[in-house]
Amino acid sequence: MKLEDWLNSGVPTIANSLIDVHKNHFSIDQSIGFEGQEKVYTILKNFRKVLFPCFCETYHDEKRINTNVGNILRTTALDLKDLIAKVLVSSGEENTEAKAEEIVMELINKLPEIREILQTDIQAAYNGDPAALSIEEILFSYPSITAITIHRIAHELYNSGVPIIPRIMSEYAHSLTGIDIHPGAKIGEYFFIDHGTGVVIGETSTIGKNVKIYQGVTIGAKSFPLDENGNPIKGIKRHPDIGDNVVIYAGATILGGDTVIGHDSVIGGNIWLTQSVPPHSRIYNTQPLPNIKQKGE
Amino acid sequence: MKLEDWLNSGVPTIANSLIDVHKNHFSIDQSIGFEGQEKVYTILKNFRKVLFPCFCETYHDEKRINTNVGNILRTTALDLKDLIAKVLVSSGEENTEAKAEEIVMELINKLPEIREILQTDIQAAYNGDPAALSIEEILFSYPSITAITIHRIAHELYNSGVPIIPRIMSEYAHSLTGIDIHPGAKIGEYFFIDHGTGVVIGETSTIGKNVKIYQGVTIGAKSFPLDENGNPIKGIKRHPDIGDNVVIYAGATILGGDTVIGHDSVIGGNIWLTQSVPPHSRIYNTQPLPNIKQKGE
Amino acid sequence: MKLEDWLNSGVPTIANSLIDVHKNHFSIDQSIGFEGQEKVYTILKNFRKVLFPCFCETYHDEKRINTNVGNILRTTALDLKDLIAKVLVSSGEENTEAKAEEIVMELINKLPEIREILQTDIQAAYNGDPAALSIEEILFSYPSITAITIHRIAHELYNSGVPIIPRIMSEYAHSLTGIDIHPGAKIGEYFFIDHGTGVVIGETSTIGKNVKIYQGVTIGAKSFPLDENGNPIKGIKRHPDIGDNVVIYAGATILGGDTVIGHDSVIGGNIWLTQSVPPHSRIYNTQPLPNIKQKGE
Repeated sequence: MKLEDWLNSGVPTIANSLIDVHKNHFSIDQSIGFEGQEKVYTILKNFRKVLFPCFCETYHDEKRINTNVGNILRTTALDLKDLIAKVLVSSGEENTEAKAEEIVMELINKLPEIREILQTDIQAAYNGDPAALSIEEILFSYPSITAITIHRIAHELYNSGVPIIPRIMSEYAHSLTGIDIHPGAKIGEYFFIDHGTGVVIGETSTIGKNVKIYQGVTIGAKSFPLDENGNPIKGIKRHPDIGDNVVIYAGATILGGDTVIGHDSVIGGNIWLTQSVPPHSRIYNTQPLPNIKQKGE
Repeated sequence: MKLEDWLNSGVPTIANSLIDVHKNHFSIDQSIGFEGQEKVYTILKNFRKVLFPCFCETYHDEKRINTNVGNILRTTALDLKDLIAKVLVSSGEENTEAKAEEIVMELINKLPEIREILQTDIQAAYNGDPAALSIEEILFSYPSITAITIHRIAHELYNSGVPIIPRIMSEYAHSLTGIDIHPGAKIGEYFFIDHGTGVVIGETSTIGKNVKIYQGVTIGAKSFPLDENGNPIKGIKRHPDIGDNVVIYAGATILGGDTVIGHDSVIGGNIWLTQSVPPHSRIYNTQPLPNIKQKGE
Repeated sequence: MKLEDWLNSGVPTIANSLIDVHKNHFSIDQSIGFEGQEKVYTILKNFRKVLFPCFCETYHDEKRINTNVGNILRTTALDLKDLIAKVLVSSGEENTEAKAEEIVMELINKLPEIREILQTDIQAAYNGDPAALSIEEILFSYPSITAITIHRIAHELYNSGVPIIPRIMSEYAHSLTGIDIHPGAKIGEYFFIDHGTGVVIGETSTIGKNVKIYQGVTIGAKSFPLDENGNPIKGIKRHPDIGDNVVIYAGATILGGDTVIGHDSVIGGNIWLTQSVPPHSRIYNTQPLPNIKQKGE
């Protein structure tokens, strides 16, 4: 059969079949939908504009910038409220509109405080990377700042019990930066991730102040108890606690819900650590000795 | 010289020189071109819409959604047919239009089956990650689903002998997710990659059913035979076979075309494996013991 | 309070507070701004079009393509000149317009030479990957080519002393590919990175000709001297030198400013190397032996 004919004769059945399969597994009414996912991205871009007004187009116009930031806040508040109200329905919440309004006001009230903490994160990048030449360079070109900005917003919504949206936010950051921080993770001020690709920070991790992490570091789960069906039980403390002033070098893996890394410790590259260590520890692998052979050996 | 003058006097020569270099290496007529690359991305977005109609804008409108999915399928079929016909020319195929039509019909006919398999992948994510709270959260925020959806489409085109397009598809997924699956890899149902950044799955790998993989895992080539010019010979089995129900933890590397991982095996984090193991194996490193030193030591 | 009322009563104070915090840390006049960051991305897309004219929409029209490439060069030259003049102000440069014009002309004059080198990079990918079936496939689907194209442009601007812009460029490449090459790194011709996710190449690295690198490789700093405030001193040689014809397999880490890898050496997967090795070395780990246990053991 020619494609052209088949498009009319064959395709409608396939379309119906695809829609049927989908409806079997997803309910239409509760879905945040494609517009929802896109709107979350827009909301994050808008939060970046109000947190760092140099991302606004009116930034150089002293008279307009205040109005502009105010307007963006208002639009974003309403968009976010609609989305939250929608996802709260699917989680069985009653009085979703009022709850959504409350959550949005709480978040936006907290923005100036979040902004102050983000400044400590920018400062930590400047202090921690010899290649960083200015505060502005960090804001415009460090994936760490993108990731932690999004995380600090997503974490507030996670704490307020908002489903789905915080994870769409964190996965947006992951896609942009290669840094995968679950919105549940608690992270202190002066936080810096250098390079960042491959970093994973699990849901129930806590990280103290002034912690520096390099690319490829996993702060993850060791193993998790299974329920009677052999599936992992949700909602258990599974990830480590990292103390203040800890440095974790590239490729290190720290696992387990009762693993505590004492403050001021240094974890060397490629370390595999599933036990607690006291404060001021310095932990290095006996790195496998390289075998060096010459031509003809 | 002032830039403005030079733009008129100097630039035309440079433009000609750039075009000449390019034409020396690439033939104009056969190129899929920039529009081609962009069109592949659009086609993938459209396939996502028909596979998961909640990504359609008309999703909440029961009367329009069927027509909408049908229309997207028709447009996508025609666009894909044109692209395939074009790249088949460059691979020396005759009767490219008819061949392209056939390939497109085969793929679209297979979509409902692909959709059913993708549902098993979504279920595997839900079962495999304690942090996953709903099926919908997985669809909207798990990179694994983005990567495997694109892979299952690209793999069909790869099997039909379509050049270039499947690789543009897989690299699009890689760019979005950090997960690099060659379109040639055969992957069974209930497949889940957690976090995913840095995962590499080579062209001639086969992966059974119900396999779970974590970030940073490589299923790759050990070494490859060289031809008389010292270049790798193309088209040889170079990558491992992974059995059903295997779990591979973060950072593990499994290499070689005759390496077979028996079903129901568990491969520990950071394992370096270039040999076959029987079914039900549990493989753990003697992880290098961390040296823990205290202040002053 | 209802959200609607609060948007009028509460938000203006928050907007002012956010702008105040930002102004405390960033000066308005010197900022490259959001438009600047977006413009850098556009400039890179345009450079791709002139370096590889198959990315132009007029590519198939022999009469228009020359004019088209010329026009893109002219627009890009002027846009880039404006941006460079702006960031040179913030670095205290005098006569910024003239300096910016000079830098732009130098870069654009060098484009044909850069294009020739990029062709060697494409060839290296073809030679180095058994899965690569055509030169065109590489141009349209290899992250290595995206990363090295952007790097070779950013490196020229870095050498000309342009602040911020080269790092915005390299971070754009990092976001697209997972490959993080600092614009300062010197990289020879015939360069190929396979897969690429997680690769980090530090600012003061030098890499010879015909070097092949796999995913997850770090060419980084061992440690860096601190100033009296405990912060890293900027501008010191911190990263290794890699000789010609070296191959570095996945996950290897090579660290230190006086580490020299002699030409024609092979560095095995997961190697941790902080010392120099002579030419023609083959370096393999005593990989930790996997413990293989069977059911019931």
